[in-house]
Formats: sequence, C-alpha cells, structure tokens
Amino acid sequence: MFNSREKSRRPLQRSAFVRPSPQRAAPSWNVNILPAETPVVNANARLYQYEKTTKEQFDKIENVLREISAMQHERNFVDLAQRFAKTQLGFSLPEPLLTNHWIKPVDIGQLYAWCVFETFINMSDEFFNLQPLAMEDESSFQKFIQECGFHTLDVSPCADGRLAHIVSYVLRLPYKSVRRKSYAGAMFDVEDSLQKWVETEMLRHREGKPNQASEPTRYLKIAAYHFSSVAPEHEGCAAHGSDEVRAAEEAKNQLLAFRQGVENSFCCGASIDLLLIGVDTDTDSIRVHVPDALGNFDVENYIDTLSLYRRGGAGKLNQGDYRLGENLRDVILAQVGSSPADGMLRLIARLIAGNLQQIEYVKQYHGGSYYDIGHQERFIGMGIGFEEIQLRNLTFFSYLKTVEEGAKDLDVGVKIFSGLNIQRGLPIPVIIRFDYHGEVPGAKARAELRCQQLNQALRQRYEDIVKRGYMHTLLMVRDCSMDVKAEVIGCSVTVNKEELH
Amino acid sequence: MFNSREKSRRPLQRSAFVRPSPQRAAPSWNVNILPAETPVVNANARLYQYEKTTKEQFDKIENVLREISAMQHERNFVDLAQRFAKTQLGFSLPEPLLTNHWIKPVDIGQLYAWCVFETFINMSDEFFNLQPLAMEDESSFQKFIQECGFHTLDVSPCADGRLAHIVSYVLRLPYKSVRRKSYAGAMFDVEDSLQKWVETEMLRHREGKPNQASEPTRYLKIAAYHFSSVAPEHEGCAAHGSDEVRAAEEAKNQLLAFRQGVENSFCCGASIDLLLIGVDTDTDSIRVHVPDALGNFDVENYIDTLSLYRRGGAGKLNQGDYRLGENLRDVILAQVGSSPADGMLRLIARLIAGNLQQIEYVKQYHGGSYYDIGHQERFIGMGIGFEEIQLRNLTFFSYLKTVEEGAKDLDVGVKIFSGLNIQRGLPIPVIIRFDYHGEVPGAKARAELRCQQLNQALRQRYEDIVKRGYMHTLLMVRDCSMDVKAEVIGCSVTVNKEELH
Repeated sequence: MFNSREKSRRPLQRSAFVRPSPQRAAPSWNVNILPAETPVVNANARLYQYEKTTKEQFDKIENVLREISAMQHERNFVDLAQRFAKTQLGFSLPEPLLTNHWIKPVDIGQLYAWCVFETFINMSDEFFNLQPLAMEDESSFQKFIQECGFHTLDVSPCADGRLAHIVSYVLRLPYKSVRRKSYAGAMFDVEDSLQKWVETEMLRHREGKPNQASEPTRYLKIAAYHFSSVAPEHEGCAAHGSDEVRAAEEAKNQLLAFRQGVENSFCCGASIDLLLIGVDTDTDSIRVHVPDALGNFDVENYIDTLSLYRRGGAGKLNQGDYRLGENLRDVILAQVGSSPADGMLRLIARLIAGNLQQIEYVKQYHGGSYYDIGHQERFIGMGIGFEEIQLRNLTFFSYLKTVEEGAKDLDVGVKIFSGLNIQRGLPIPVIIRFDYHGEVPGAKARAELRCQQLNQALRQRYEDIVKRGYMHTLLMVRDCSMDVKAEVIGCSVTVNKEELH
Repeated sequence: MFNSREKSRRPLQRSAFVRPSPQRAAPSWNVNILPAETPVVNANARLYQYEKTTKEQFDKIENVLREISAMQHERNFVDLAQRFAKTQLGFSLPEPLLTNHWIKPVDIGQLYAWCVFETFINMSDEFFNLQPLAMEDESSFQKFIQECGFHTLDVSPCADGRLAHIVSYVLRLPYKSVRRKSYAGAMFDVEDSLQKWVETEMLRHREGKPNQASEPTRYLKIAAYHFSSVAPEHEGCAAHGSDEVRAAEEAKNQLLAFRQGVENSFCCGASIDLLLIGVDTDTDSIRVHVPDALGNFDVENYIDTLSLYRRGGAGKLNQGDYRLGENLRDVILAQVGSSPADGMLRLIARLIAGNLQQIEYVKQYHGGSYYDIGHQERFIGMGIGFEEIQLRNLTFFSYLKTVEEGAKDLDVGVKIFSGLNIQRGLPIPVIIRFDYHGEVPGAKARAELRCQQLNQALRQRYEDIVKRGYMHTLLMVRDCSMDVKAEVIGCSVTVNKEELH
C-alpha cells in the first residue's frame, strides 16, 4: 500500500510521481511561514470585527421582532415597525407581511425567516463584493504549498456549524485556495474525492494548473473530526456519539480508503498524502496526527496545540518566534518522535502557527472558550457552494447533490434546529444553494432546476414540519467560475403566492 | 465555437489538440470496415439465436404461471407445480410460495416477480460467463476508431427499452468498447458527460490509455433519439410527445451544450466530436445526421439507411459490397453534399454497414418491422451498470444515482408498466443495480448501501403501488473493474420476511 512512498526513499529512482527527496526540495525554514501581518494582534482584530458584526446582524433579528410583535396593536403599526426595522436591522420588512395586523396577528415565523434570509443575502453580497476575509493571494499560497510538496489542499470537516470556520479561522488558510466539502462526522464521499483527484491530475497534465504534472507534488486530503474539551460526552460529534476516538478512527479509515482507492485505480505510483486533524470546538485548538516519513499516522499519537500554547506558545507567538519555522519544527520533532517528510512538516508548522493565533483569538475575544460550546447555528445551508460561509456556528452545512444522498446529514441538522428553533416556535431557515460553471451552456438553468428539485425533496422529507409552518427555504445559485455574488431564485416566504425575496 | 475545428484546416499549425488532416491520417478505404464474419447471415443467425432464447425465457413465465394457477386445487399441487416449472422454465419455484395453496390462493404476483428475477439472474450470469454477444476484441475496435480520429465512443440513447440493443444490434458495435448511458429522450446529463471527458483525458495524459494524449484523436459523443415509422404519432419518443423533430432538436442542443462546455471549460483547443443519430424503433433503421468538415450538422439533413437498403442495399450487403468502404463512402458523399472529416466518414460508413445488417436481420426474423412496435419491456432496470442488457424491448432502463435525480425517467417507466402489467394485475419487476470499482476500499459496501437507498426512495415515491403489491424489487451489485457476474443482495419477494432470492 505504501509502495510508492517507499520508493521515495531511493532518490536515484526519482520519477514524476515520487515524492521529492528532502535534499532537493528542502524548504528554507528561516523564512516566515505565515503571511506578513505584524503584529499577530492585527489579524485577530480584523477577523473578530468581521465575526462580530456579521453575527450581530443575525442576533438582532429576534429582539427586533419581539419589539415589533409588541407594537402590532398601535394605530400606525406599519410605519413604526418599518422605521424600527430599518434603524435596527438596516432594512425594511416586506409590507404585505405587516398590513393585516389589525385582522390577525403578524406572522412572526415568516418575518423571522425572511429576516434571516435578508441578512444572509446582505452578508453574502458583501462577502463577494468586499472580500472581508481575503488573505495572501492565491499564487503565493500555491507557491508555499508546492514548496511543501503539495499542489492541492482538500479539507473535509464535519458538517457541524462549529467547524465552518476551519479554513479561514482555525487553520488561517486562504479559503479560495482550499477545497472544502463538509460531511456529518467528516465521513467524506470517497468516490467524490476520487473524482476531484482525477480532475486535478487532468488539469496538471493538460494545462499545467496549478503546476505541471512532472512536478513532484501530491494531492493532500485533510479530514477534520471534532471533540469538546469542556463537555466531551455531550458536545462532541453527534455523528459519532460524542466519542472522540471513534470520530478520529472513522475519519482515519475514510482517508486510508481514499488513498488506497487512488493507488489501486491508477498506475505509475499514483498516490496522495493524508492528514488527520481533530478540532476542539470549545477552544478551537487542534490535534495534528503527524504522519511519519511513510505517511503512516495513528489516532493516539498527535500534537495538541492547546498544550503547546499553554507551554508558552502565547509569548512566543507575540514575540514572533513561532513565525520562524525552525523553532516550531524542533518542537514538533521533539514531540512526535518520528520524522515526517520535510514538506509535510513545514505545512504542519504553518497550520500549528496559524492555529496558535486562533487560540489567542479565542482567548482574547471569547474568554479562552466559546460561550456557545453547543449548537447555535442560525440556519441550515444545503447543496453545493457557500464559499462565503467562513464563520463558526452560523450554519449547519450539508454538501449534497440530492436530499436522498444527504438525508442522514440533513436529519442531524433538522434535529439540531428542532431544539434551537421549533421548540420555541420559530421556523428553521434553510438556504438551498447550487453553484454552477457558467461557461457550460445551460448550466445555470440546470442549477436552478437542481435547487427546485432539492427544495421539493426537502419539503417531502420534512412534510410534517413544513405543514406546521416550521420550515422556510431560500433558493440561490451562483456562477462559481466568476468572482460574482450569488443570485436569489426563489423563497418560500410568500403573500398571495408572491415570493418576498 | 468551432475555433479549434477551424484551426484544423491549417495543417501547418497542427498540435496535439488539432484534428488530423486527411492527408496524414487517411485511413485505407479498401479494407473491410466490419469484422470478418462471412457471410453476414451468420452474424444475424447468432444474434437472433441469443435474442430468441433469452426472450422466450421471459415470455414463458406467464403461461407457466397460468397453468400452475389452474392446478392449485390438485392434491399433489406442490410437486406438480415444481415439476412443471422445472421442465418449462428450467428452475423450481420457492416452495414457501406454494405450500399454503390449500388455505389461500397462491400469490401469482409474487411468483411472477420471482420468476422474472430468476430468469434475469440466469441471463445475467450467462452473459458474463459465456459472453454470447462478444464481437471483435477491444483492441482491434480501438485501433479502428483511433484510425478514424477518435479515442472514446460515448452513446446516450433514450431510456426506452426499444433502444436497449442499439450498441450490439442496431449499430453492431462491441458493447465493451462503447460507453452507454441512457436517459429519457436521450437528454443526457451534460455535467456527467463532462466528468467522463475529464476522466478520459486524464487517463490518456497520465497512463496513455486508450492512447497517448499527444495522438490527434477526440472524444466522440453520440446521441440517439428515436421515432416510429409505422405509428409516428403514437409510438415515438414519449419524452418528446412522439414528435421526431423535437426529439432530434433537443438531442442536438444537448450535444452542442456538451461540446461548448468542453471548449469553454478547458484551454488549448479542447473540443469533442458529435454525432446525432435517429433510430426507427419499428425497423431498426437509422438516420445519420452527417456532420460537415467543421462538425456542424442539422436536424433536417440526414442519411436514411432504410432507403439505402431499399435501393439495393440488401443485395450489395449479401454480395459483400457494403463491406468495402469505398463504395459506401461514395454513396454517403453523394447524399450529404458536404464532406465530413475523412475519419468521421469512415466511422459513419461502418455504422451504416452495420445497420444495414440489422435491417436485414429485422426483415429476416421479424418480417421487416417488429410485431411489438410499442412497449413490451419485461422489467425496469435502474441504477448504474447493466452491461448485460443488450436486447430490444426487454428493459426500460434508467441511468441514475438517486431516484430524486432520475424521478422523471422513472415516472415514464412506471407509467409504461402500469399499462403493461398493473392493469392486468401483475406487479412491476424492478431490478436495482449499482456497479462499483472493487479496487477502491469500501466501494462494495457503499454500492450495497446505494442499492438499499434507491430501493427505499423508489418505494417511497411509488408508495401506493407498493402497498397494493404491484411493485417488486431485486437488488444487485457488480464489480465492474473485474470480468465477473453480478451479485444479488436483496429481494422484496419474501415469506415471513425471509428473502427468496
């Protein structure tokens, strides 16, 4: 199984598909492994600003509607409500939802869903227009990972909303340069990943993107399971019964299946690299299951960034020490006992350095451990896309092409929201999204059809909830081959069948 | 849109992605374009033998069960029935379905479904064990199509059972060497085809399979719509309201969308070749919409093999004339007025020559026009796979990964079978199949899960029919990376919850 890896130890037989020998690709350790932004505090302040303002927009909704509910017997209710909403939320409400207040109570559930959707649309537009989370540019990151021996980073975290910020926050990676597909329990679809691998290799061979196939780099698949340090038995991964060892084991098995799939299906030493990461959803610290030189790793053996941080990481971070690779490299090597490939070590050093910043962030702005250690998502996102969702506990996201395939994931999400919303009388806002490649004729029309199809299948699966008025949907599509915003194509919040979005 | 095609007219700028100029790749016309099997009659006799014996196995079932039904009040019924079944069908029936005949009438519906499944399993096993439709070997066919300028043949016929024999019979191509994916109305999935194109190019670049990417060959996508010459208004394509022009137009649009998708999504002159074919489901004659040198084709302009046959094709065929390309080439060029690329012309000549054999076949064995010009399928097949189904009007086949995506196709199939079976009191036998790549760890388990998932979704969609006992399912998986038979993993025909298959 590791034959192509073993080959890499014989530098004389080096071929296009063999890992670069350390001698050749030895990256310079004495350079900054994080993009320049000094001091670290600045990056954190900027990220916090974005997290805070965005979440506040969602969190205001309930209070505003509570006030509006209280004023619905006023004579000039519509004006009052609109003025209040405009001041507080920044937008007016759809008038038809307010005007019949003197006949029957205003439908707060519909208003709530509408406001969540409106807030999301604003957030999404802003994300694509202003790029608030833009980090270093794609090409310099590509250069970095290629120096580490990789050409593609493909992360599958759990669908749990508490991991939605894994790329931009927890690991401090530029979101545009990392493929992210979320699955309940990080149990990613092996066949889907194989397909992505095929596509990646084709582009390298045919178009030299992101690099030539003759370059000795590999596809890196990262699986990210999660656990809770504060309430390990209750707030861990629901898909694995809050059992962190099981969560790690099963993510590991999925990684191994993917690698073996590549090795068995294709010739000429085809293989990929693997990395298993655990995320503590309370502190955002991570466990990195550092692989050895042969690519082997295990569930018990990992570096824990929280203990690294506690052993003085914070100070070193502020002094800029951890941004110098050499130092961190020794720390890692001392811990794991075995020595990973040099490029992998360098990438891990970068992930750890980035994550130490995130631990500092959580300490600085969230008291070291989030107040919302449990689920606090604001809506469910389902379909293909959602690049703009990079915030923790905002979205339960399920990557799926059909409800039929994603049913298990969706059931988890609906169960979470039954507790969060329905129990209190509020509907579940579900945003259905399908990204498409605009350069393919008819792709947009097909994406719209997909959205409608998902909407219909969702409503069928949760018929009872829908009938009781406890599920609302917003349908969006986006041309992901362009840097443009998403487009609304339908909404279940209606008056006289007229859609209000 | 045709830029890469236009380039091909300038031989000086020839590159890996440019069509070969006629000068260079000029195939030898004076060789047989069909594999050697003299006389043609032999091939037809062999094909008929297979069609006849296979279909008879299915067609006997009703009569046998009618007899068995009549004998259920005999004292030694179980023995009698078993002996009769064994003699007539070649297999015994599941005893538990017979033994309670003295308490209540034998459940003929269950027996019927069971017999159809048993017959299919036997047919499928035989197909993979004995390869009754094996033609020339894969490598000589690959050589032929590469000489024509293609490396892959990908056919999307309509899901209609009257086109299920398109590869092995109507076009006389070796089924193993042709990708076939059926969709109602031949409206194939553009994104799925793009993915296949990507995979194909990757293998050419990386592994030189089926040929090196530097060879100037292309991917050929064929769409096959259908019509009825005997009852054009009623027995045409249901998906297009029996309107043959609409059927052709929409298949053409799908082809163009696929080509433009390839051209827009990939650089360096990426393109594919297209061919539109219409099949007359009464006579099995075809219309070939011969493309011009730029790859343009239209719905009105085609060669009709039936009139070719009537103008003396039969005689020439028997004398072996049509097996000499030169002759047929002139016939085609005289008809279309414009001149297609030489390799395309050669492929078309082979398709036409093969189809003339099939017209002769239909004349010889089916009186020139099938007695069953309408639907007469014996079961529905759904899922991924079914290489063994190469017979006309045996199966309504729907290529799908989920019922959600394939719902429209399935609805058509269920409607057809409501007329064929339910109306007479017989259930619809549905065979669910999922092929997998055995070299990928866990793929078999996932294929089994897929089968179960499809089964569940099917039962949910047609709940009413299932409740009335009018739908039965057989679940099968097959390792398509090996030359092995399919495996039964479940069946809805049960006694005391014990599956009888």
